[in-house]
Order: sequence, then structure tokens, then C-alpha cells
Amino acid sequence: MKAVRLHKYEELPKIEEVAEPKVTGPHDVIVRIGGAGLCRTDLHIIEGQWAEKSGVKLPYTLGHENAGWVQEIGSAVSNVSVGDTVIVHPLITCGLCRACRAGDDMHCINSAFPGISVDGGMANFLKTSARAVVKLNPSLAPKDIAALADAGLTAYHAVKKASAHLYPGTKVVVIGAGGLGHIGIQCLKALTPAEVIVVDRSPAALDLTKSWGADHTVLADGNQVAKVKEITDGQGAEAIIDFVGEQGAQQDAVQMLRRAGSHYIIGYGGVLNVPTIDIISTEINFIGNLVGTYNDLAELMTLTAQGKVKLHTAIYPLDAALDAIHDLDGGKLHGRGILVP
Amino acid sequence: MKAVRLHKYEELPKIEEVAEPKVTGPHDVIVRIGGAGLCRTDLHIIEGQWAEKSGVKLPYTLGHENAGWVQEIGSAVSNVSVGDTVIVHPLITCGLCRACRAGDDMHCINSAFPGISVDGGMANFLKTSARAVVKLNPSLAPKDIAALADAGLTAYHAVKKASAHLYPGTKVVVIGAGGLGHIGIQCLKALTPAEVIVVDRSPAALDLTKSWGADHTVLADGNQVAKVKEITDGQGAEAIIDFVGEQGAQQDAVQMLRRAGSHYIIGYGGVLNVPTIDIISTEINFIGNLVGTYNDLAELMTLTAQGKVKLHTAIYPLDAALDAIHDLDGGKLHGRGILVP
Amino acid sequence: MKAVRLHKYEELPKIEEVAEPKVTGPHDVIVRIGGAGLCRTDLHIIEGQWAEKSGVKLPYTLGHENAGWVQEIGSAVSNVSVGDTVIVHPLITCGLCRACRAGDDMHCINSAFPGISVDGGMANFLKTSARAVVKLNPSLAPKDIAALADAGLTAYHAVKKASAHLYPGTKVVVIGAGGLGHIGIQCLKALTPAEVIVVDRSPAALDLTKSWGADHTVLADGNQVAKVKEITDGQGAEAIIDFVGEQGAQQDAVQMLRRAGSHYIIGYGGVLNVPTIDIISTEINFIGNLVGTYNDLAELMTLTAQGKVKLHTAIYPLDAALDAIHDLDGGKLHGRGILVP
Amino acid sequence: MKAVRLHKYEELPKIEEVAEPKVTGPHDVIVRIGGAGLCRTDLHIIEGQWAEKSGVKLPYTLGHENAGWVQEIGSAVSNVSVGDTVIVHPLITCGLCRACRAGDDMHCINSAFPGISVDGGMANFLKTSARAVVKLNPSLAPKDIAALADAGLTAYHAVKKASAHLYPGTKVVVIGAGGLGHIGIQCLKALTPAEVIVVDRSPAALDLTKSWGADHTVLADGNQVAKVKEITDGQGAEAIIDFVGEQGAQQDAVQMLRRAGSHYIIGYGGVLNVPTIDIISTEINFIGNLVGTYNDLAELMTLTAQGKVKLHTAIYPLDAALDAIHDLDGGKLHGRGILVP
Repeated sequence: MKAVRLHKYEELPKIEEVAEPKVTGPHDVIVRIGGAGLCRTDLHIIEGQWAEKSGVKLPYTLGHENAGWVQEIGSAVSNVSVGDTVIVHPLITCGLCRACRAGDDMHCINSAFPGISVDGGMANFLKTSARAVVKLNPSLAPKDIAALADAGLTAYHAVKKASAHLYPGTKVVVIGAGGLGHIGIQCLKALTPAEVIVVDRSPAALDLTKSWGADHTVLADGNQVAKVKEITDGQGAEAIIDFVGEQGAQQDAVQMLRRAGSHYIIGYGGVLNVPTIDIISTEINFIGNLVGTYNDLAELMTLTAQGKVKLHTAIYPLDAALDAIHDLDGGKLHGRGILVP
Repeated sequence: MKAVRLHKYEELPKIEEVAEPKVTGPHDVIVRIGGAGLCRTDLHIIEGQWAEKSGVKLPYTLGHENAGWVQEIGSAVSNVSVGDTVIVHPLITCGLCRACRAGDDMHCINSAFPGISVDGGMANFLKTSARAVVKLNPSLAPKDIAALADAGLTAYHAVKKASAHLYPGTKVVVIGAGGLGHIGIQCLKALTPAEVIVVDRSPAALDLTKSWGADHTVLADGNQVAKVKEITDGQGAEAIIDFVGEQGAQQDAVQMLRRAGSHYIIGYGGVLNVPTIDIISTEINFIGNLVGTYNDLAELMTLTAQGKVKLHTAIYPLDAALDAIHDLDGGKLHGRGILVP
Repeated sequence: MKAVRLHKYEELPKIEEVAEPKVTGPHDVIVRIGGAGLCRTDLHIIEGQWAEKSGVKLPYTLGHENAGWVQEIGSAVSNVSVGDTVIVHPLITCGLCRACRAGDDMHCINSAFPGISVDGGMANFLKTSARAVVKLNPSLAPKDIAALADAGLTAYHAVKKASAHLYPGTKVVVIGAGGLGHIGIQCLKALTPAEVIVVDRSPAALDLTKSWGADHTVLADGNQVAKVKEITDGQGAEAIIDFVGEQGAQQDAVQMLRRAGSHYIIGYGGVLNVPTIDIISTEINFIGNLVGTYNDLAELMTLTAQGKVKLHTAIYPLDAALDAIHDLDGGKLHGRGILVP
Repeated sequence: MKAVRLHKYEELPKIEEVAEPKVTGPHDVIVRIGGAGLCRTDLHIIEGQWAEKSGVKLPYTLGHENAGWVQEIGSAVSNVSVGDTVIVHPLITCGLCRACRAGDDMHCINSAFPGISVDGGMANFLKTSARAVVKLNPSLAPKDIAALADAGLTAYHAVKKASAHLYPGTKVVVIGAGGLGHIGIQCLKALTPAEVIVVDRSPAALDLTKSWGADHTVLADGNQVAKVKEITDGQGAEAIIDFVGEQGAQQDAVQMLRRAGSHYIIGYGGVLNVPTIDIISTEINFIGNLVGTYNDLAELMTLTAQGKVKLHTAIYPLDAALDAIHDLDGGKLHGRGILVP
């Protein structure tokens, strides 16, 4: 089969022929890929940012946002059958450790992360496990929802955590109106009664967010902190959902926070730098967010089936993966890029 | 009456005669001071660290950790009577704003902070409000428990937040075995089944913590992160209670955290500096802590009455306030310094 | 002024002249009534159901759902000014007890309940306290929102508790499509992504609920349990919001519950009767609900101002109070009855 | 091997030879039994109370409280090895359904309950699954801790739920000072700072509870509600942990509750009967409790290893199972009965 494989950091991956994955264990599930999302994390992987953290051995196949149809199953798989339409949770988890038993999959101590630490889904087939596949209504097209497997899941997970504190009258700032922001805003509207303020550098992106439910938009023109303060009566917002996490956004977020507010960090790349006196004198919190749980993904697929979350995608044939990477890197990819084998 | 008053930042306060405070509003409560705690924050105030945040007008009377007996009450005060023994919550709150109505007193939008933003309790009498006084068993001596009003309350508040995540088998690191650490360890033992690891630079202070219930002690000799990792099977601790917050402790804490763990920041002075990729890849949290609520203080007084929290104090006459300040600054004050008029 | 006063249980109240209430304490607030809601609880009061629990001395003025304009304030009132439009939280609370300090107003140990235990708002003026008045946008007409003060608040409070467990994919049953159900359904749609199933005896009432957002309606024709089971794939619903609580509804609710589900009891009059083996073998919960907190009321007013909660009312002049009572008792009052002085 | 098998309801089980269980699936684990607890539920099973709910086909082997050593494992078992000492969680769960993925094992939709719905552990060997075995320190003797697998777990699970609301100053009533009460009291002392009031009919049992940490004991002599009210200043307790659930205890509990309190139901047999007006006017809750999760069991084993929970047992050889049943039924079994093959 064809696969998009990374051979060396700081070099573009190659599209090449590799052997198809096979079932070898009782929980294995082979998924025929219908769509594999392309994500900014793929660019960071190519740049080598994850080299040490993932410990992956090159070459390997990229692709951590996958959906498709079940092709083959191991002897102990009972939750899906061959032919089922599925979206693939990004992590293969053990189901036996404390974290798995607590519903906190992302902290499984025996996990693998296809596309990050083992072969991923930018290929004809992906090998994953029974615990990673969410069965979908067959009317859903994998290419339309693949990007929810990671980008969508990450946005949903952070929004769900924040929603516990977002009662009527609260305000939440979404920093970044790209792929994750897109989904994050819709999730906020579905899960909470809070007013949503969106901050982005692009007037066009901000305009779009109004159709997703944004209540206020703020152009990040250097004056964004003051504008958010104005919209929040000088108090700041109860929550900041920061999908950028670099280039100063992570520091703006701190200044946009209300007393006792929480800064949910999802985007990364920058450094958070805060005097401890500022943390304690206003009693603010910084909350890390890493992908999401299997149940989070199932809940997000429910919202999608209910029409509450929609996704803008740009489809590329798998053979055109390098074009997609080029477009994403150059800011020319609008919506979420999806590779279709 | 006599009072310890600050006339100029970076100069020592003066002990001088001032007029006694009088009841002017229906909720006013005048407390005859039985003990006023001296705290590192008093040194920070003298240094000018709080000048901008508090906006206080000099000269004013220091002292934000107070206990004593009710001397006089306003017309609408129904919860205490003249003669009652009381400990004084550090904040005067309105009881009408959203935060007060939510039990989140510290974020009252119409508050005053005696000893920080208005005249405090290093004097014969203090003016506070009905909403700030916790009535005590008359057998308690104000000088013995005054330091619980702020130092103790702050430690309790952070421990209570952390306790929600500390089930049997978890480990919690307490950084700093001074006044707050002392109380924090006892509160952890009273509220949680977690194993307590204490980190400090002083072998003598560490030794003492064993009598308060510390399960492990770690000397902060430069190798403290590795030692905590070893005690936690290489995983780090579920929670860090950081009573130092400066001189590198705040950065050690980040490295001592387990995946999905939380760093509770109480001490201050340093800068928290963390790459956002480290926050998201392990999904860790940083939780600010500011004093505590009125109910927190009442709960802490219950623990004290039950003998679960004890306090080491060093008593100074009010007239010797400058000696006490000198001793605290020079590291010669063991236990919590209390000024007695 | 005129007032609707109960002189004897099981007899209709009288409309008569009484003295206007006056400010006597520093927190008193006199409200000029713009609208006083009539509620099934008023019928229960007249029947004597609350005689023992309230301990009120007859005669007294009915009316526990009030809104209007501030007429006069005590010396310590800082949150409202004369002329402000306000809705009145049903309880006068002390602000000093543990419950008040925890944001749990309804369990204040020094409270009064105008219209239940002291004179209420079916009159030209009502005496309440600073802690009970929520300031509103002057564009709101008291007669349009008065019924939110108790009926709406009660529905909101129960829905807010339930919302913590209602994630995407869950289903919630609302029993009773009357005044409270009306508001409850709208609150569920505003606060949660759950699917709402409404059960009522009236086909007309059920039809109406679709415009408020009900996803499924079930006629209570004796077969309602089976129908709810069918809609929930045989599992039952994660939550039941029971606005009836009598005539068998409280028993239907138990059978409609999913394993680990919760039955929120708001309506009353019947007896809950469940074998303990049924409670433990499915691990179900029964959750009592009593009015709501001050902050709940403020949040509900935010939802109202945002257009997310609307109220159908039937206006009667105060002089026609007995007609309104007659209509309510006879099932001829559609929407919520409001008396306007 | 030998096994204690039930052939007919309302007749005593027989001790007979049956075939040993064998590994047939990849997750199977065969445990060589070191101790199998005898529980009041076994009596209820024999009486036929569970016949309909369990749907088990007779004859089958009793025993749902098991500990021992791993004898054989399936091909996909990675968390235990042959020879490991283990305690057996009572439920075999799928690890794939929503409940399992949420850490809520007891509500697994594809579960089996050895000893209730399939062959249990009153035998030489038990067949269970990888997801049910908790690995223990080899120094622990299975016969000493077997009863923690169900009785202990059930007590811990209820106490853990209650602990979220038990802050310093609260009081909790434990009804029933038998096997579960024994463990429940110790768990309350380990997990919470609440004062524990124990109610039982036996003065001897009450005396024993003082050594486990009970703060107050109340003889259930008909006057127990009044005595609890007295100890709680007339207010009632914040929580009732009801290990009896029959013979009026479940009704006493309602009267012992403080406003906004919760009644945790664990024991069963009686009927809970409460007017809905009493539920809403005090806003009380009734909380069902069913065994506990795998992580609960692991946490309880931590408390046991830390010496915080101890168990009194009465050992019988497996061959003397009928004697043990006879003694339990006749009130002659002190401590928890354990059958040792």
C-alpha cells in the first residue's frame, strides 16, 4: 500500500510503497482509511519538535487523525465488525492501568500513538486496537469527520473541562480561529451558556466565526487585551481557551483573565512566563490539555450527528500529501486538510 | 492606643500612639487584639512589593493575622456579642456581590484587607466587620491561634483544593517546612490519605516535620527533584503544594509533577517559566491560591479544636515588634511570631 | 395599601386594606410590586399543607414570586437604589451562617420566606432585604418576569444540578409541561446538550413544548414508562426532572431511570416508595430540590435577558386575585398567573 | 475440584466435585482460591431474592468475595503473572462500553458477576478476567483480605462518595456495626475529618467500634433518632451511611438527616417510603450504592497495606461451608466468615 513516511527530521516525508499492516493480537483492528487529517503537529513532527518526546524510530508513517472502515479484526474484538464505519481515537490504550480504569485514557501508561510514536494513518490501512475505534452511523463519510479524531477531540476536551465553570453570564475567550478554534466555538455553544469572544489576527477568520456562534470578535492587532477587557467590563474573562500557545498569545491570555479565572492551554510552541505573585494575588489557574478521552470522542461524534458541530475541510488525494503540507505551512490551506487514499 | 505603623517603604515601621477605632456602621466590629501574627508578607509590604497592588495610603497600621475578643459591635451585628473570643478572617467582604454569594469571599469586589489596604491588627484594637469574625470556644487563647487567621488559612485553603484529587495511593509534595508548611502537612494528614513528601533546605526543619506526620523528607540540596522522582517510582507526585514560590522552588515543582498532576502555588516572589509544550504533553495544571474563605477558616478552627492542627509560636510584646521583624528577617524566628499588646 | 390576606386555612383569602411596610433595619428594602406570581403552592398554603412547616401566624399576606421597583432602602443597602427595577429572591437570608457563606442560601438558618412565613407580595408593597433583590435592566417589566422569582428559580436550580451529568448523548425526561416544566425545558436546552423527553397528560401542553425545544413528547396515558424506555433504547434516561411529584408521577420516574441515573424531585404531594434493593442494584439516586440560590436567580435573569428563557403569563389585576385562584384551581389558567397592583 | 453449589432456592447448597475451570479466552485468568468470603448476600441468594435479577441457571457455585494466587492466564493478559497474589474484583467487565471507559465498572453493559450470575469462588479455583484482578504484595495472605473484595469494596465506595461532602465540622452516621460497618468506619476515619456516630442494636458491637475510631455510639433501642439529633445539636447529620437498609433503619435514616444532607443506601431488604414534600422542603438526597469500581478496590488495598483498614475474620475450611452459613444465619459468626479450600 501507499504511505506518507518521514525518513529524516527537517526533510519532507516521502510517499512510498510499504507492506499492509496485519492483525497479530486479539484486540487488533485494521482500518481501511477513508480520510487522514493533516495537522500543524505534523509540521512540528517534521521539524523534529517531538523527536525526543515521542522516541519514534524513523522512517515511519505520519497521520494521527483517522477515520475509515473496519477491514479486519482480532479474535477478541467485540465492539466493531468488518465493514463498520469508524473514527479512530488517536491513542492505543491498555484498558488495565489506573488511568484507563479511571476514564483518563490519555495517561495510559502502556499506550502507543499511531502517527506520533508508531505508524499512522496517512496510508491505505492503519493498525489500531478495539479500544480506539468509535463506531459511527454508516451514513457518515470518513473524509468529512476524520479531523475530529484529534483536532476536534482536543478542542472538545478543553471545552468540556472549561464548561464546568461556565454558567450564564460568564464570558470565555477563544484565542485562534483556525481549525481547532472553529470546533471549539461550536462546542462552547453546544455545551455552555457563556458568551464567546474570539481573538484572531485574520479579519476574514473572525468574520467566519460569527456563523459558528461567536458573540464578539476581536482583531489581534496589538490592542487585543484592552479590547477583551472592555467587553468584559474591565474584569477579564472567566476562561481563556488558548488554541495558539505561542507568539505571545499565551501571555495575552494571562492578562485577559478575570480573578479566579482559568487559562486552558492547548496550542503550544511558546513559553508561559508569569510571576508567582500575579498567580496568587488573583488566584488564577493554568490548565494543560492533551487530546481527549475515548468517551470525549464519542460525545463529539454525537454533537456532529446532531448537527451541532460542523467541519470545513479541504480534500487532497493521498498522492498530493506534499502539496497539502506545503499549503498548510504557507497559510494557504483553508479549513482542515484531509488526505484521501 | 499603641500601633505598629508603616510610614515609608523600605523603612522599618514605628510604634506609636493613635486613636482607637470606633463603630461607625451597622456591621462594624471592634476587636481587642489578643495576638497579631507577623508574616513574611509584612516584610514584603515593608519592601514595597505590595505598594501598587494594595494602593494603601501611608502611614497605616500593619497586621493581617488577628485574634482577640469582641469589644464593641454595630447595630446590625447578630453573630457575635461583646466579650466573645474571635479569630478574624483577613478580609472584610460585602456579602452582596456574586463572589460573596458563591462562598468565594476572597474575590469580593467590595472588600478591604486590614493590614494590607487599611489599618490592621498590630495594635490594641482592630476595626473589622461581622462577616469577618469567627466565634471561638472561650477556652482558646487568641495569642495561640492568631497565626491561623492568614498563614494557617492559606495553607488550609490550598490543601482543601488539592484534597479533592488525593485518594489512597497518591503522593503529595510539600515544598517548604516553615510556618505554612507546618500547618499544610497537618491539614494534609487530617483531610487526605495521601503520602506526604516534604522538601526543605533545613535538616532540622525536616526532622520536625516527621512529628507532624510527614511520610518522607527530602533535603533540598540540589538533588531534590531526583529524590522526589525516586520516592514516586519515577512518575512524580500527583500534587505539589508550593509554599515557597521563589528561588527555584517553583521550577523544581514542575519537574516533580506526575502526568496530569497539579502544582498549587502559594508562596511567591519568583517567576513561573514553562514551555507550553511541556504543559500540554503531560497535561499538568498550575493552581493559584489566595488566602481562603470564611468557611475555610471556620473549618480550620474545628481541626484546631479537635487537636489535629497545632501551631508553634514565638510570643513578643507589641512593643517589641521591631525585634520580631528583625528576627524573622534574619531567620532567627522559629515558629510563627505573635505580637501581644 | 391593598393586600391579599389569608385569614383561615381552607378558606379563600381576602383582599383588604393594610398598613404599608416601613424600613426598620439597615438592610431593609421596600419594593413597589409590579407583578406577584400565583403558584400552586399558594393553593397548598390555603389548604393548610404548609401550616405546620411554615409556622406562620394568620392573617398574613400571600405572594412569594415578586418583582417591582425599589421604593425605599435601609441605611446599609449598597447594591440597589430607589427606582431600580428588581426581581425578589423568595428568601430573606442572614449572610452570616455557614449555608449563606457557602452560597447555599436556601439553607440559611436565620431566614424568612415572605409569602410563606411572613407577609408576601400580593400587595402594593413588599418588605424584603438587600440580600434578596436582583437588580435588572430597567427595560424589563416586572409583570413579565415575576414568576421567575420562584417557579422559574426552582426549575433552574434543579436543571443546573442535573446539568453536571448531562453530556452529549444523554437523555433527560421532564415530567410535567406546566409552568415549571415550560421553564425547565428551556433551561435544559440552554445549559446542556442532552435530548429532552417531555411527559404530560395534556396533548396540547405537549404540542407547545416542541416550540420550547422538546426533542420527544410522550402522552401520559398509562403507557408512558414503556414509551420512555423505547425512546431510550430500553435503558431509561440518565435524569428525570419531576415537576409533578404526586399522583404516581414520582413512581413512574423511578421506572424511567437508567442505571446510575438520578431522579430530581421538585413537585410534591405524593409519597416516594422504593424497595432498597431496587435502589442499590441499579445504583440510582433521588435528589431533593428547594427553590434556588440568589446566584441561580441572577443566572436565570441572564438567560432571560439573552432571550433563552421566555415565560407565558396571564395577567390579573390585584383586585381579581380570587378569580386567578379560581382559574388556577380549575385548570383554566394557561401560562403563569400574575397579579398586578 | 470441590465447590459449594446451589441446586435449588430455599435449600442449602451442596459441597461437591466439579471440573476445574480452564482458560478459553485471551483475557481469562484462573485464580487458585486462598479465601472466599461468606456474605449476607449469599443468604439472600439462597432465599431466592436475587433469582430474577441475576437470571443465573442452577446449579452453580457461590462465592463473590475472592482472593488467591494466579494459576493460569490467557494469551492477552499483561497485568498479572502466574503465581501473583491477587484480590478479585467481583465483576468481570468488558473494558469497551461507555461505563467501563468512564471508570464506572459496575455499570458495564457486558458484565458477569461470578458467584451471582456465573460460577463463583467457593471452590479450589475461580475463572475471572485480567480486568478483575488487583495484584497484591506477596506478603498479604488471601484469607486475611478476601472479604474486602465485596463487603469492603462496597463500604469503601459509599464512603468515598460521601467524603466529597464531609469537611471538618460535619457529622456522619453509620447505621450498622457489622462487617461492612466495621470497614466503613475505618474508611471514614482514613478519608475524612468528619465525626463518626455509629448506631447499632448490639452494645458489644458498639463498644468494638470505638477501637476503630467511632467518635460517638448510639444504641438502637427505639430512641436512636432522638439521640442522633441530640449529638448533632438538633440539626441531624450531613450524611447517613446505611449498611442495614431494612427493618426500619432506612426510615430512621431519613429522620436523622440534616437539611441538604444525603442518605447513602447500601444495605437492602426494606422499603424506602418518604413523602415528596419532606424531600423537597429540606432538599435531602438518597444515594444508591452498588459494590465499587476496580480503582476503588485498588485504593482500599492501599489503605489495608498502610494499616488503616483491618478486618476481623472467622476462618472455616471449605468443607465446613454449611457450618459457616449456619453460623451467619444464626448470628453466631463474629467478624467476616472466610472459606479456605
